Amino acid sequence: MAEFSIPVRVYYEDTDAAGVVYYANYLKFMERARSDYLRQLGFEQGALRREHGVAFVVRRASLDFRAAARLEQLLAVSARIAARRRASLEFEQMVSREGRPLVAASVQIACVDAESLRPTAIPQHLNEVLDGEC
Amino acid sequence: MAEFSIPVRVYYEDTDAAGVVYYANYLKFMERARSDYLRQLGFEQGALRREHGVAFVVRRASLDFRAAARLEQLLAVSARIAARRRASLEFEQMVSREGRPLVAASVQIACVDAESLRPTAIPQHLNEVLDGEC
Amino acid sequence: MAEFSIPVRVYYEDTDAAGVVYYANYLKFMERARSDYLRQLGFEQGALRREHGVAFVVRRASLDFRAAARLEQLLAVSARIAARRRASLEFEQMVSREGRPLVAASVQIACVDAESLRPTAIPQHLNEVLDGEC
Amino acid sequence: MAEFSIPVRVYYEDTDAAGVVYYANYLKFMERARSDYLRQLGFEQGALRREHGVAFVVRRASLDFRAAARLEQLLAVSARIAARRRASLEFEQMVSREGRPLVAASVQIACVDAESLRPTAIPQHLNEVLDGEC
Repeated sequence: MAEFSIPVRVYYEDTDAAGVVYYANYLKFMERARSDYLRQLGFEQGALRREHGVAFVVRRASLDFRAAARLEQLLAVSARIAARRRASLEFEQMVSREGRPLVAASVQIACVDAESLRPTAIPQHLNEVLDGEC
Repeated sequence: MAEFSIPVRVYYEDTDAAGVVYYANYLKFMERARSDYLRQLGFEQGALRREHGVAFVVRRASLDFRAAARLEQLLAVSARIAARRRASLEFEQMVSREGRPLVAASVQIACVDAESLRPTAIPQHLNEVLDGEC
Repeated sequence: MAEFSIPVRVYYEDTDAAGVVYYANYLKFMERARSDYLRQLGFEQGALRREHGVAFVVRRASLDFRAAARLEQLLAVSARIAARRRASLEFEQMVSREGRPLVAASVQIACVDAESLRPTAIPQHLNEVLDGEC
Repeated sequence: MAEFSIPVRVYYEDTDAAGVVYYANYLKFMERARSDYLRQLGFEQGALRREHGVAFVVRRASLDFRAAARLEQLLAVSARIAARRRASLEFEQMVSREGRPLVAASVQIACVDAESLRPTAIPQHLNEVLDGEC
C-alpha cells in the first residue's frame, strides 16, 4: 500500500528540559497519524463506536528511539498497516525529519467491543476498505 | 478554612525546552490539588457523576505566572474555596516552592448536569460538608 | 490587523474521561497559534533565543471556558495582538468551532533575557515587523 | 534486588475520551518511577548532568497493554534494573492495580554525553551504588 504520512510541527508542549521531544510524546504523534489515516479512509473513531459498537485500543508497542527531534522542527509521521488479523491491526510507524528516521515503532491495535472492551472482529465495512489498502 | 495542599514533584514530562515547567502544566497540578481536596472530603468525581448525576467543570481561570519551576523541584500546590454559590465554587490556588509563590490562580468551577452539561445546584450532601470547610 | 488562525484537530490525547477536551490543553492549542503566528512573521523562538538572546514567557492568562470541544472535531484557534508594550505583548485568543466560540483568552507574554529570565525590551527587528501588524 | 515502586493516582489529565488512561501516559508514569528510583539512590538527573556531564535517554521501549486504568484509581508503578551494561540500563517496569498487572514494559536507557548526546560509560559512582542494587 501507499504509505500514509502527516506533518507534525514540534511545539514547546512536546519538548522537555533536555531540549528534545519528550519520549512519550512520539506516541501521541503516532496516534495522530493512525487516526488521520482511518479518517481519510472514511472511518472516524466516534462513528465506529456509535455505528459499529467497536473501538480500537493499543495492545502492544515497540519503540526504537534513534535520534532526537527538537523545538520547531517539522517532522513526518507515517502509518502503514503491516499485518491484518481478524480482530487486530499491526501498524508500522516512523517519525522522521528531512528523510532521516528518528523513531521507529510497531504498534498492535486490537478491535474491541466498545462496552465490554473484549476483542471482537474488525467490522466488515472497514475490512473491505482495508482490502484496497494492504 | 484550613488550606489544603499537596506536594508535586517536577518530572521531565512537566518541563519544556526552555528548561522550566510548561505553562499549561500548572493547570494540571492545580486540578490534582482540587481533586485530592474533594476526595479527602469524601467526594470522588466518578461517584458524584454516578450517584448525583453531576460533574464539575472549569468555567473561568485567571493565572499569574510569577516565577518558574524547574526539573526535580518539589512544589506545594494549594487549593482553598474562596467563594461558594448555588451552582459554582471559586478556588484560590497557589503553586509555591519553599514558601515562594510561583503561580497564583483563581479558578471558577461550575456544577453541571453530567448529561446535559447545564448548570445545576451543588448536591446538598457536598454543600453540607463544605459548610464545615468555608 | 488581520486575525491569524490555525486549524486544530482534536485527538484522543487532548480529551479526558469526561469526553471533552481537557481544560489545560486549550492552552497548548493557543501556544501553537502564537508560535505559528510569530513563525509566519519570520520569527522562530529558537532563533530569537540564539540571535537576540531573548525568550517569550507567559506572565498572565485569563480563560473563559464557554463550551466544550470533543474528539475529532476540527477547531479554529486564533491569535491577535491586542496591545504592545516595551517588554510585553497582549494576545487575544479564541478557540472556536464552526464559528461558535468555545474558549476565549487574554494572554500576556513577556519578553525576557534568555539567561536571566528578567524582562527586557522586545528586539527592534521584531517590533518593526509588528508595526505592520497592529 | 528489592523492587522499587511508587503510587500513582489517575487524574483527569491522564485519561482520554474512551474513559481510560491514554496509552502514552503510562510512559510518563514509568519515567516518574525511574526518576524517583535514581533519586532515592542519591542521583538527581540535573546533578548527573552538571557534575558528571551525562544524561539518560530512552533508546528502546516495549510495552504490553493488558488492561486499562481508570479515573481516580490508585496504581503502583514499579522499576527494576534487569540488566546493566557499560553504557546502558535495562529496566523492567510494571503498572498494576491491587496486584493486577495492567501494563508491562521493558525500557532500555542509554547513558549519553549531555552535550554530544553520544553514548558514554555510566559514571563510576553510580555504578558502585547500582552494584548494591542488582
